[in-house]
Formats: sequence, C-alpha cells, structure tokens
Amino acid sequence: MALIVQKYGGTSVGDTDRIKNVARRIQQTRAEGHGLVVVVSARSGVTNELIARARAINDRPDTRELDMLLAIGEQETIALTAMALHAIDIPAVSYTGAQAGIFTDLVFTKAKIKMINPKPILKDLKAGKVVIVAGFQGINEEGQITTLGRGGSDLTAIALAAACQADKCEIYTDVDGVYTADPRVVKNARKIDEISYDEMLELASLGLKVMQSRSVEFAKKYGVIFEVRSSFNHNPGTIVKEEVAYMEKVVVRGVAVDKDQAKVVISNLPNKPAAAAAIFNALADASINVDMIVQNVAHTGGVDLTFTVQRDDASGAVKVLPAVLKKLGGGEIKAFDNIAKLSVVGVGMRTHAGVAATLFSALGDAGINIQLIGTSEIKITVAVDRAKADDAMRAAHEAFGLERKV
Amino acid sequence: MALIVQKYGGTSVGDTDRIKNVARRIQQTRAEGHGLVVVVSARSGVTNELIARARAINDRPDTRELDMLLAIGEQETIALTAMALHAIDIPAVSYTGAQAGIFTDLVFTKAKIKMINPKPILKDLKAGKVVIVAGFQGINEEGQITTLGRGGSDLTAIALAAACQADKCEIYTDVDGVYTADPRVVKNARKIDEISYDEMLELASLGLKVMQSRSVEFAKKYGVIFEVRSSFNHNPGTIVKEEVAYMEKVVVRGVAVDKDQAKVVISNLPNKPAAAAAIFNALADASINVDMIVQNVAHTGGVDLTFTVQRDDASGAVKVLPAVLKKLGGGEIKAFDNIAKLSVVGVGMRTHAGVAATLFSALGDAGINIQLIGTSEIKITVAVDRAKADDAMRAAHEAFGLERKV
Repeated sequence: MALIVQKYGGTSVGDTDRIKNVARRIQQTRAEGHGLVVVVSARSGVTNELIARARAINDRPDTRELDMLLAIGEQETIALTAMALHAIDIPAVSYTGAQAGIFTDLVFTKAKIKMINPKPILKDLKAGKVVIVAGFQGINEEGQITTLGRGGSDLTAIALAAACQADKCEIYTDVDGVYTADPRVVKNARKIDEISYDEMLELASLGLKVMQSRSVEFAKKYGVIFEVRSSFNHNPGTIVKEEVAYMEKVVVRGVAVDKDQAKVVISNLPNKPAAAAAIFNALADASINVDMIVQNVAHTGGVDLTFTVQRDDASGAVKVLPAVLKKLGGGEIKAFDNIAKLSVVGVGMRTHAGVAATLFSALGDAGINIQLIGTSEIKITVAVDRAKADDAMRAAHEAFGLERKV
Repeated sequence: MALIVQKYGGTSVGDTDRIKNVARRIQQTRAEGHGLVVVVSARSGVTNELIARARAINDRPDTRELDMLLAIGEQETIALTAMALHAIDIPAVSYTGAQAGIFTDLVFTKAKIKMINPKPILKDLKAGKVVIVAGFQGINEEGQITTLGRGGSDLTAIALAAACQADKCEIYTDVDGVYTADPRVVKNARKIDEISYDEMLELASLGLKVMQSRSVEFAKKYGVIFEVRSSFNHNPGTIVKEEVAYMEKVVVRGVAVDKDQAKVVISNLPNKPAAAAAIFNALADASINVDMIVQNVAHTGGVDLTFTVQRDDASGAVKVLPAVLKKLGGGEIKAFDNIAKLSVVGVGMRTHAGVAATLFSALGDAGINIQLIGTSEIKITVAVDRAKADDAMRAAHEAFGLERKV
C-alpha cells in the first residue's frame, strides 16, 4: 500500500459534476489499496470573482485581508470534495491549510512554506480516511491566514508529498502532460514520458506554462518525483524527476515558444563603463524584468544595446529610459513588440556538440531571421519575429527529431 | 473611552454599498472615541446558496463538512468589511471565529460556546485597531471549525461582549427595535425603550423573531446589556437588560402573535394513567415539539386532550398517533391547522391582578373565540382562529394601552 498525493486544479473541480468526477478518481486509486492525500484548488473563476469583489470596496486591498478573502475559495472545494466522497461511501475529512499544519513566513499573497507538521494528516490516513487539503494556503506564526501565490496548490501538493514521505505525487490538470512542443502548433508533438527537474524548470520559465518554476524547484530540492497528468482521461502523464544518465541520450527534450515578448533597442549609446548598469538599474526600479541582453560596439563608435522584456513592459521601458539616456549623454530608443522567444531545452546538450548549429540551420532553411541569441547550459534561446514563431517551432521540432520516441 | 461590540446581520452587509455603509457607521462610533469589536454575519442569501451547493453533491452532507463550508460566508464578510474600513483610513483587522479564540463543544451545526480567549482581540484593540470578527463560527478542541446554528452571530456578539467586558453591545438589524406589537398590523404599535431579559425571552420564543432565545439567555446569564437597533437609520433601539423595579409598573410590555400553529384534538381518549405520557413520548420520538396542552374529562367518561404544534408538524402528529391510540384502546384524532397563538408578556403581571380578565374581555368584545389558554408567570397565551389573529392583536394592544409611553 502506497501513499499518494494527488492535486486537482481549478478546472478539475470547476462544478458539481467535475467534483463528483474527482471523487470517482479518488475512489479508483483507493480501490487499488493506496492511502490518499488530495490537494484541491478553488474552482476556476472564484479567485478572480473574489478579487473583483474586494476591488469594488477598496482599490488596493490590504494583502492580509486579501489572503483572508481568497482562502475561502479552497475551503469551499475541500468541503464539497469531502461530501462527494461521503456520497460514494468513502471516509474523508477536509483540512484547511492551517489545519494541515502548513506554516509559512509572514509575507501575504506570496508566502513561502517554512514547515509542515504532517502529524494530524498521518493520523487520519492511518484511520483509513482520505485527507482533502486546501491548496494555495497556509498559516503564519501569528496565526494569520496566508496564500502562496500563483501555482500555490501545486506547491502545497509537492510540499505535502515531501512532508508525508509520499510514494507518489500526481498533479492533475487539463493537459495530458508535458509535450515536446505545443501540440496545437506542431501536429506530431509527442508527450514526454520522463523529464528532469532542470529541463522542466527551463520549460516552465518559458512558454510551457504547465507549472510554476518554484513548485518544480521545491520538488527538486526535496527530491519529490511527480507526474503531470490529465483529470479528464486515464492516460499516463509526464514524470518529472532527478536527472538520470539515460536522459542525456536525448539532446533536446522539447521546444518552447513565448510569444509575449518585446525587444528594446538602444543605439549609439555612449561607450561609458557605467552605461549598462544605469539602464538596467532604472528598469529594475520600475519593476521591469529584462530577459535576453545583447550588446556590441556599433560602427559609429557608440554601443548598440538590445534586450527583451515581457510585451506589457515595453511601453514602461520606453517611458523610463529617456531620462537615463539624457544623463548618459546620448542614445536612441526603439521598441519592437512583435517578438517571440524560442528555446530548445535538454540536459543532453551538456554532452552533445552542434546543437546551436543544428537549430540555426533549421531556422535559416525555413527563412526565419534570428534577431538575438542566448544560451545556458541546457538551453538555447533565440528571438524571432512573432509572425514566424509557429514556423520556427515546427522547424526546430523536426530538426531535432522530437516526434520520435527515444 | 468605552469598548463597544457591534453586530451587523446579513442584510446589513448584503452588498458592496451596505458594507461601505457599515464602515461609515463604525467610523462614527470610533470618532466618538470608542474602541470597537464588530461581529458580522454572512451576507444574506450566502448560507442558503452554500447549502444548495452541498445538497447538489450530497443529499445529507456530513455536518463537520457543512460547517467547514458554511464558515466561508462570514470569512468573506470580515475581509471585505476590513477592506472597507481601510478605504476610509481606519485601521482594522479581521478574525475568523478560530482566530478570535471562540472555543465550542464538539457538536457541529449548532455548537455551544464553551470559552473565549479574548487576548488577541484585546491586544489589537489596544493598538487602536477595529477588530472585525466572523459571527456564527468557532473552533472545537480538535481544531475543527464549528458553527453555532441559527442566530449564531448574535450569540458571538454577546459572548464577545461578556469576554471582553465591553461597556455596550449593539445588535444591528433591519428593524428599529422591539415593538409592543407587529407595527404592520397594529398601526400605533410603539417601540419599547427598555425591556427585561425575561420579557425578551418570552417574546423571542413567540412570533417576535428579532433574536433567538439562546442569545438572550446567554446575555442574561452573563449580564450583558444589549441594544437592538437598525443599521439603516440612527434611531435609538430597544435596550435589553436585567429587570429593574420600575419595569413592574408596566403590566404588559408587548403582544406577540405566532400564526404558524396547528391544534391537534384527541377526543374520547381512555382515562388511563399513562395515556398522556404515551402520546407525548411518541411525539418527542418523532422530534415534534408540543407547545400548549389542555386536558379535561369529557362527558362520555373518556378524556379530551388538545395540544398545539408548529403548523409543519401537524401532519407528522397525525401520522404518529394512531398506533399509540390503538395500544391505549381508543380515541379519535382531529387536526386543525388554522390556529394562531397570541401572547401578552410583562414582568408587571407578577404584581398586578386581572390581566387575564382584561385580555379575555377584550377578545370577547371583539368577537374572538378563545380555543385554548396557557399561562406562565409573566405571560398569558391564548390560541385563536388564524383569521382572527390580527384583530386579536389589535384588541389586546388597545386593551393594555400599549400605544401610550409609560
């Protein structure tokens, strides 16, 4: 008999019928003789509804009170899920984050889990009950309710799996798992059976928004093996785990594209030592995250500096920078908001040469101009014209033969 | 500087504008230099919505899970009320029942308050904050969320007033206070300025549903003086307090009518010692509450036994009793569901004679037939035809001169 942690997201518990469906899935797992801790999110839409209700009363609601308010979303789901299990004669008991002993730091709306006391849960598991835990929420040392921020329910599940020393952690969502590329764009994209934490992290931080990075980081830190799978069918999903030797046989695990990018070009920047620092400090002060950065000396003697930001941030960058350039004594700004970022990711890159060359050739053959290039140990990223992003994804997918199962 | 506990019911916090209105009322009280603990209910309708959602999943939801679910109604209101106060620059902090240290017994859906630890609230009060507490809910010794049942938020307010040794407790509702009779029926009904706990208890247990009896009982036990008043205007309300000598000057404080009554008549019941016991035990086993009871020996040698029940229970009584009568060896059942119960209540009755005579004369003069009579130390109750109930109320109100301020 294994202990399994399952997490069901907002769409999986979106209405009465879906909650009943989740109850039946739990019933099946239990019929196989396993103990179960089930983490559920608020039903989809509730969190936004509650935020709207708060904003109608206060433009800038206090974060402590916002967490007090948002926590009711999951509290509703745990109670209803327990009731759905009782309706099919399965003993079950619901836990708020506080009751589940999920202790966080003192930050509201994006608290970090500091400690979990799994004793009450383990006691109810021993008594044969399915334990239903509210995702996304915890309690701080002052007894205040906190929430964990975006992707918080995944984090709850992975942290509980670590604390309860679960044998398995299953993250149920509305997709079948992690794919080699977006299946809506690349027809022969293939579901990945196994992926390393590092690859998943690189993909999560890009267009492939199956999970938030910090949940994957937490799983990596505590060695929690988890599976991403669909709650709407019984297909096996993608298992995310520590890198093992055979994973390196695959050079590229997947291709991800983020279409919401913009490029900002500063040309003829005076070639001064502190110029780049001044620019990126000003952007940081305006809470604008910069991603790729390329700089080279231009023929005019000045410097050309190019960087990418999230599309929404482009206008902010254009607003912030003129004052900086004035101080530095020159430079012109141009922003292009029609940029996409394509990355190929794979731990096999560490031991395989020629990955960049293969990618660039494939894109060149497809007539796609590469605007910027960035690399990490297990990733190569290029910025391309957004209109060419899908073509680029297909070309890269084919170039690395990702449609073939290894 | 006084400490005031205010309680706002579901209609007072029914939507965004009403919550803002509550915030302004709190602001006024605070501007007078008072400390404030504010108890709020779920906005009207929410509790029924949640119960419907539960029933859609499970016909008979587990009571522990039902309390887990229902508690979110007040949790929403406390957060929104705190935000509304912040919006007008009033420091405020919300507390769930558990955070407010409201410890209950282990019963779900109608828990009793066992103990309150007011320390955290007193600390925040001392720091100058308005403390907003979720009504209706608490926590038991196993850390489970409990709810206090109907009228639970009033109970929370009165219990907090006792625990925090508040100077005043104000119960805000959608009526101006307690009236000498229903103002919709008796045009010159008058708001009562002060009423004793015992009178309020008799009225609460009748048609005058301003508050549940147990909240009044709790207030009486702990000597909490409270005022029932409207959140929609600034009129003074009715102060409920321990009986004082001058209250006895008034013979009748008010007249209440309960129209949802039925009368069950058993005629020719064999005149056996255990007959009545057998009948009322059977009704109790079926959870049917009996109110007035009259028995007398009939001319036939048998016994005529008449009692009143809530209208909804009449058919249950008719279903349960035939088996009992068969065992007893006789008796016929007739039920009349067109009954109203009228009561006149006043602590002055203890020292004034002739109250019953005045009431019976007034009803007789109005052509109203009295079907049953019952009395207690401070109350006389009669059962009349429902169609005559309003006339009876007006006649009694006039007979005791209740329109005149004493």
